[in-house]
Amino acid sequence: MRIERDCIGEMFVPDNVLYGIHSLRAKHNFPITNEKVDPAIIQSYLQIKKAAALANEQAGTLDKEKSALIMAACNQLLFSNDYSAFIVPAIQGGAGTSTNMNVNEVVAQLAMQLSAQGGKEPLVIKPNDDVNQSQSTNDTYPTAGKMAMLKRLAPLTSAVSSLVDALTDKAAEYSSAIKVGRTQLQDAVPTTFGRTFTAYASMFKRDLSRLKHAQKVLSQVNLGGTAIGTGINATAEYESAIIPILNKYSHLSLHQAADLVDATQNSDAFTTISSAMKSLAADLSKFSNDLRLLSSGPQAGLNELELPKKAAGSSIMPGKVNPIIPEVVNQVAFETIGNDVTVTMAAESGQLELNAFEPIMFKSILTSEQHLTKAIETLVENCVSGIKVNAAYCRKEVEHSSIAATVLSPLLGYEKTTALIKEALATQQSVKALVKQKQLLPDSLVDNLFTPEVLTNVRKVKKEKSAAGSNLN
Amino acid sequence: MRIERDCIGEMFVPDNVLYGIHSLRAKHNFPITNEKVDPAIIQSYLQIKKAAALANEQAGTLDKEKSALIMAACNQLLFSNDYSAFIVPAIQGGAGTSTNMNVNEVVAQLAMQLSAQGGKEPLVIKPNDDVNQSQSTNDTYPTAGKMAMLKRLAPLTSAVSSLVDALTDKAAEYSSAIKVGRTQLQDAVPTTFGRTFTAYASMFKRDLSRLKHAQKVLSQVNLGGTAIGTGINATAEYESAIIPILNKYSHLSLHQAADLVDATQNSDAFTTISSAMKSLAADLSKFSNDLRLLSSGPQAGLNELELPKKAAGSSIMPGKVNPIIPEVVNQVAFETIGNDVTVTMAAESGQLELNAFEPIMFKSILTSEQHLTKAIETLVENCVSGIKVNAAYCRKEVEHSSIAATVLSPLLGYEKTTALIKEALATQQSVKALVKQKQLLPDSLVDNLFTPEVLTNVRKVKKEKSAAGSNLN
Amino acid sequence: MRIERDCIGEMFVPDNVLYGIHSLRAKHNFPITNEKVDPAIIQSYLQIKKAAALANEQAGTLDKEKSALIMAACNQLLFSNDYSAFIVPAIQGGAGTSTNMNVNEVVAQLAMQLSAQGGKEPLVIKPNDDVNQSQSTNDTYPTAGKMAMLKRLAPLTSAVSSLVDALTDKAAEYSSAIKVGRTQLQDAVPTTFGRTFTAYASMFKRDLSRLKHAQKVLSQVNLGGTAIGTGINATAEYESAIIPILNKYSHLSLHQAADLVDATQNSDAFTTISSAMKSLAADLSKFSNDLRLLSSGPQAGLNELELPKKAAGSSIMPGKVNPIIPEVVNQVAFETIGNDVTVTMAAESGQLELNAFEPIMFKSILTSEQHLTKAIETLVENCVSGIKVNAAYCRKEVEHSSIAATVLSPLLGYEKTTALIKEALATQQSVKALVKQKQLLPDSLVDNLFTPEVLTNVRKVKKEKSAAGSNLN
Amino acid sequence: MRIERDCIGEMFVPDNVLYGIHSLRAKHNFPITNEKVDPAIIQSYLQIKKAAALANEQAGTLDKEKSALIMAACNQLLFSNDYSAFIVPAIQGGAGTSTNMNVNEVVAQLAMQLSAQGGKEPLVIKPNDDVNQSQSTNDTYPTAGKMAMLKRLAPLTSAVSSLVDALTDKAAEYSSAIKVGRTQLQDAVPTTFGRTFTAYASMFKRDLSRLKHAQKVLSQVNLGGTAIGTGINATAEYESAIIPILNKYSHLSLHQAADLVDATQNSDAFTTISSAMKSLAADLSKFSNDLRLLSSGPQAGLNELELPKKAAGSSIMPGKVNPIIPEVVNQVAFETIGNDVTVTMAAESGQLELNAFEPIMFKSILTSEQHLTKAIETLVENCVSGIKVNAAYCRKEVEHSSIAATVLSPLLGYEKTTALIKEALATQQSVKALVKQKQLLPDSLVDNLFTPEVLTNVRKVKKEKSAAGSNLN
Repeated sequence: MRIERDCIGEMFVPDNVLYGIHSLRAKHNFPITNEKVDPAIIQSYLQIKKAAALANEQAGTLDKEKSALIMAACNQLLFSNDYSAFIVPAIQGGAGTSTNMNVNEVVAQLAMQLSAQGGKEPLVIKPNDDVNQSQSTNDTYPTAGKMAMLKRLAPLTSAVSSLVDALTDKAAEYSSAIKVGRTQLQDAVPTTFGRTFTAYASMFKRDLSRLKHAQKVLSQVNLGGTAIGTGINATAEYESAIIPILNKYSHLSLHQAADLVDATQNSDAFTTISSAMKSLAADLSKFSNDLRLLSSGPQAGLNELELPKKAAGSSIMPGKVNPIIPEVVNQVAFETIGNDVTVTMAAESGQLELNAFEPIMFKSILTSEQHLTKAIETLVENCVSGIKVNAAYCRKEVEHSSIAATVLSPLLGYEKTTALIKEALATQQSVKALVKQKQLLPDSLVDNLFTPEVLTNVRKVKKEKSAAGSNLN
Repeated sequence: MRIERDCIGEMFVPDNVLYGIHSLRAKHNFPITNEKVDPAIIQSYLQIKKAAALANEQAGTLDKEKSALIMAACNQLLFSNDYSAFIVPAIQGGAGTSTNMNVNEVVAQLAMQLSAQGGKEPLVIKPNDDVNQSQSTNDTYPTAGKMAMLKRLAPLTSAVSSLVDALTDKAAEYSSAIKVGRTQLQDAVPTTFGRTFTAYASMFKRDLSRLKHAQKVLSQVNLGGTAIGTGINATAEYESAIIPILNKYSHLSLHQAADLVDATQNSDAFTTISSAMKSLAADLSKFSNDLRLLSSGPQAGLNELELPKKAAGSSIMPGKVNPIIPEVVNQVAFETIGNDVTVTMAAESGQLELNAFEPIMFKSILTSEQHLTKAIETLVENCVSGIKVNAAYCRKEVEHSSIAATVLSPLLGYEKTTALIKEALATQQSVKALVKQKQLLPDSLVDNLFTPEVLTNVRKVKKEKSAAGSNLN
Repeated sequence: MRIERDCIGEMFVPDNVLYGIHSLRAKHNFPITNEKVDPAIIQSYLQIKKAAALANEQAGTLDKEKSALIMAACNQLLFSNDYSAFIVPAIQGGAGTSTNMNVNEVVAQLAMQLSAQGGKEPLVIKPNDDVNQSQSTNDTYPTAGKMAMLKRLAPLTSAVSSLVDALTDKAAEYSSAIKVGRTQLQDAVPTTFGRTFTAYASMFKRDLSRLKHAQKVLSQVNLGGTAIGTGINATAEYESAIIPILNKYSHLSLHQAADLVDATQNSDAFTTISSAMKSLAADLSKFSNDLRLLSSGPQAGLNELELPKKAAGSSIMPGKVNPIIPEVVNQVAFETIGNDVTVTMAAESGQLELNAFEPIMFKSILTSEQHLTKAIETLVENCVSGIKVNAAYCRKEVEHSSIAATVLSPLLGYEKTTALIKEALATQQSVKALVKQKQLLPDSLVDNLFTPEVLTNVRKVKKEKSAAGSNLN
Repeated sequence: MRIERDCIGEMFVPDNVLYGIHSLRAKHNFPITNEKVDPAIIQSYLQIKKAAALANEQAGTLDKEKSALIMAACNQLLFSNDYSAFIVPAIQGGAGTSTNMNVNEVVAQLAMQLSAQGGKEPLVIKPNDDVNQSQSTNDTYPTAGKMAMLKRLAPLTSAVSSLVDALTDKAAEYSSAIKVGRTQLQDAVPTTFGRTFTAYASMFKRDLSRLKHAQKVLSQVNLGGTAIGTGINATAEYESAIIPILNKYSHLSLHQAADLVDATQNSDAFTTISSAMKSLAADLSKFSNDLRLLSSGPQAGLNELELPKKAAGSSIMPGKVNPIIPEVVNQVAFETIGNDVTVTMAAESGQLELNAFEPIMFKSILTSEQHLTKAIETLVENCVSGIKVNAAYCRKEVEHSSIAATVLSPLLGYEKTTALIKEALATQQSVKALVKQKQLLPDSLVDNLFTPEVLTNVRKVKKEKSAAGSNLN
């Protein structure tokens, strides 16, 4: 055990650990959850510390030797992927200070150990003066948070893309599979599964563009602004060097915000990414609802789609199979929408020069990103790509559907068509037969109108319509 | 009284009203609120009906005479600004059908009356066959909704712009007024009101860009898609003509969506505009919270700002004046954030080929647009533009602030500076005096460091810092 | 025009109006919405002013003559039902001060006019010193808000009760109508519409109990606490007299909170009523979703229920009829859930001795109460009471349903039953026939098991089950 | 490796694990999160399986030998506290079926192993036929969920109680510490820290009562209802025995719901507990906001309270200490409020005989319970119990406060008092001195009025007030 001191007092710290007093206090102060700070944040933080060491060295405010040791320590931690020294809980007070302190302590301690390798006298590396030089929690923490979000946006974007692809494939596979359309859950004019799957793909393409917009917004960081964006205690040399170096180390494309004071205190970048995910969640949930509805049955449901069977559905009802993949997607959507409310409240609660509630925003956003990614991946792999359409059944439904007679309305008028449909429903015959029987239109025209192509409007019957229209109205 | 019929049955309709049976049914079915459909929707609908008449005429499916009468009726309603015939409540079932029916009935009835002017035999104009020709509720209603939102985005955008301008002016007025910064509500390093007001302006500029993005998204409409986006019962000629004509009449820049099936059933355009307003609301609320906090007092508060006095603040405490304008802005923000949840749930609940819950989305979004606009206008006019900074008091606070000694940290190290600040606080003297007394740094350097320019980092002390740093570390 | 003064300055007020300078300022300061303060709040406020006048008279701090005039003025306003003098907008800053000031001004002015009737010299009645005596906005405004909510809870509770009644009637009407159960939208074991309707009734009964609990909470008021709950400027005599008098005038059962400081600053009474309505909204929405789903069709849907036809459903699709009443209920539910978020944020934002955001809480809650009431009323009258079950169709579905074979599982085991169901589905025969054919169980037992009574478990087959079980397992 | 089969197909299962094919499928289907089903749910499930075995034995449908083995297996798992065989992820589709299947498989496998102890021929125990006998996921899963919530309510309730106690202690400690009240963040009439801390305690007492109400609601379970509440495949004997046995094993006080169909499909019990926690969260956040505000400083803030120093507050600003404990509480509050939206959406989305979205409701609620408990515990221990009031400073503020002159209003009138306060503020003297100087009231009365006891209304000055009132008005 070693004794460490801070402005509060003293504390025993185990001898063999890399972290120090600040980290330990956080662990005791914030026992909310066993979940530690997200590894994506720690990784980003280590990249920042490494970049800062070099930038400070270049600015002439950090010895080359110290800088090299700090960078080596960061590298070792990054490559080992062992984050066990980062003990601060994910939900924490202090606006991220404990997280930054934890990183500073661990890097400093490891750098000192590295300096002592080969039996050398260890070089004193200070967490705040050296590792944290030219930095504050208030610029590094939001920057690390944004970096983590950006890193997690990539797989999310790629998952949405693969969903778009899977839907486009399904649209091609079933491009001519005609089906009853439904508005307000009541039978409407026909469409095809080609159009249906394409429409979902179109929707998710807009989600991709919303995510891309959020990516741009998140790339604006306040690193260099230090405590409140005025850049106090950072040299001009450091400020201009830090972002390019960090981009090199992180393979990201960050930009230093034009107004660092603003970028330090305001949280609308976080509501922007959260909103984009909320819209995606609502879209995913609508899509999942549709899948569950269209595959309802097998006997007393709509029964238009067959989803891949993924598990026995009931512990008591033998043979039952349920739409479990869309169901899990629905739930991730609900979680994401709830998280958006959390993020909004935390953003709204920022005060003056800082928002102290970034930790919960980061946790909520990183969780939504990860859960949405995984949910979409299982949706594509275990559901969408294996969907089968009951094409024959769907076609039969269209043939029996009275509402397809909407196509007569321009020729016979809305009122007369209404009367025909009522009569057809009451007498349980098809409208098509009824029209022919009543000789309201030439048989050939009727046959032409009641083809899938015309009903789903792939081939419009312009000429006949206007001709017939003038005759019959 | 006249009798009207529909597929449900018959109803008496007063003789002297323009609306008909469908409108009346809606009034009885949906007695939720006395609020009628938003006039901005009705106005947009009349522009659609007018444009459709011309497009149908050009397509050869509507007589020129009928078309002229329909357009004349629309013009008369648009110019009179008397919307009393539009009796359908704002909150309605039926996915907007009642609203469309109401417009169809009123326009048809008025067109017939116009045809009978001068004692002529009235021409029969049918609500569904003529006024609604080539249209469905399912394409006209969302289009009218988006048009209304776009019309209301203009004043909202302009209000946010004027807020940015007012803040920029304040930033210029108080560019050098130094003040204590605060992070986590605790004293932090100094800043200036110039930076503070600029940071708010920077934030609201991003809100402008979010609104502009939403504007682009809302400009994609599904008009021409009719019932479910397949365009059934609309001619190709009509489909290509309708949007350009509508743009001419409405002075908007609408585009026909590439995938009309998608544009008919999916609601993410509405979550997009709602999210943009939610972010704006969170920003406005944070700003209002700051104003209320900085103007707290007059004796036992922070007392840094004086907001214009706008009303006696208490019925019992004489002389009390409260920050009532920011308070009303906070409340509109809370309302907007709640509305966003409503919109999200309604969007998520869309099913298959249509979202039946557009009415509540439209009401929520149009209300948020209007309330935010008005709230920002009163904020600019009755608050921001008249803000006064208690500059002398703020400067004195900086001079007494121990935390300004942060500037010593690169020279003396974090730990020694901590000790100095603790000692200064305990002995109630200034850190500056203490440093001089202890002769830790040359007096001239100390004097230089403790100037407003250095503390707020307008002028960096690079040379000295690194020089002193190497000496003293 | 007369000139009025306050601590801000002077203003012209029209000569013929009852309100004064404070009201007029509010109108100018808060142009957010045209909606005025809810009449239920104004009515309650007038009852408070009337009760306070009498309580002050009894305490000996208000002349009998003044008291009589104030009470007469309140009565006249209450009975006339003309609230046009109350011009303060519903969304307002100032924590309700403008509303209280408006009431004080109007009552004082009218009281003075009454004193001058018959050509007498008018008696000076002061808005703050007389009408507002022993009161503050901070105790009268929350009290008036709670009174308004209580008044509106009565019709809401009664609407929910009538929904419970209508459902109980439906349950009786269709007690033996057997139907396929559905879990996760997939066919499940059978049930009856009797059980289904009863289950909805059971759910709404719990909503009634939540509303009743909220009623009790809302009955605790802080009247008598004046500015911050310490009761400054109120006499002990007034404090003990005010609530009983107010109860007499308002026909409510209010109680003075034990801790007036708490009751003045904390808002959990409002989150309580809002939460109760949120739960009700979720329940109503689930119920409406079920109604829409079960009535889907008429040809390509589940088609188990027929909802009363209330309007033509489409402007383009003739003969279409949609579930418009449940749809409007869904939307009011979404609105209510959004309002709950607004209320929560406003409650959370209270600071120190007061919550300044009561106006938006009051507006949100009173709106939810009213909209829910009206939505439930139309739901009962225009939908639930007229629901028809397609009993024959539903029975046929049960007969064809393989999942009913779950009843065999205790006898044959889960695995064997699974195999039977798979075989039945694949060979398109009934499981019942298959079991008989394979002679797995005695025919009479099979016949007994596949009766509606056993399948829906009205009559349990205990003896046979355990007997057969021991034989066959 | 062994091969297992279900209605979907076959799968390899490692030989040495207790779980089987159903569990493994879930792991593959739902890779959303690494978090497994909450141990509190697993524990409750094991208690249910144990109770069901005994109830089935008593009903005569399960062999005594099997029953004993199942119970022994459950006991072994419960006492070992090793839940590694329960591999189903917390976020899952299938309405909990995978969780139930996992438990059935593990218990059956372990029971078989136990039967084979001592080299005996293993007895076949079937997951569905034996362990799950008389049960369905649809009654066991919600019951286990409610049991878990009830178990976690106990520490939450106890944490809130200890917060009430700590606040009551603080109120006693500072009962006479006078301070400036603040409404709308502006100086208001004085109060004491005694009243302030008591008011918080009063608020949290109501939270206790809301939690207690939720506890009662959660105690109603649907166990015995099996698949959809009709109790299919459960004997009457089992149904009446199961709850008392389960209560004995779990030490809970569960009740079987009167309407099992309702209790199986409706989710308002979950919105009820979630709402109670949402109200608690809003209260905690308001309280934390107040603590952070009152302790702002140390030099340029309100500085009325000193919170215990728990960590160095800044990596760059030496000596800074922040209110980190209230900050973490705020964040847990935001998370809880977001979770409530998730729960509401999931509850609203239930369809027909079941709500498939219970897993996300359970996760959200159990998380909120746990985080709130921990947050309150750290709040009590690391913050509230160590709060110190800067009593001398607060008293001085009251003495300088002009708004205390409100006490003159009943004697001098609102207008004259307003003028006095304005004059006092402008001339920077105390109102008390001004009144004496102007001889507006007898000096002795003035001295009496401006005592803390009168200002905070502990001792009312009734006689003098009315006497002076009649003289001076």
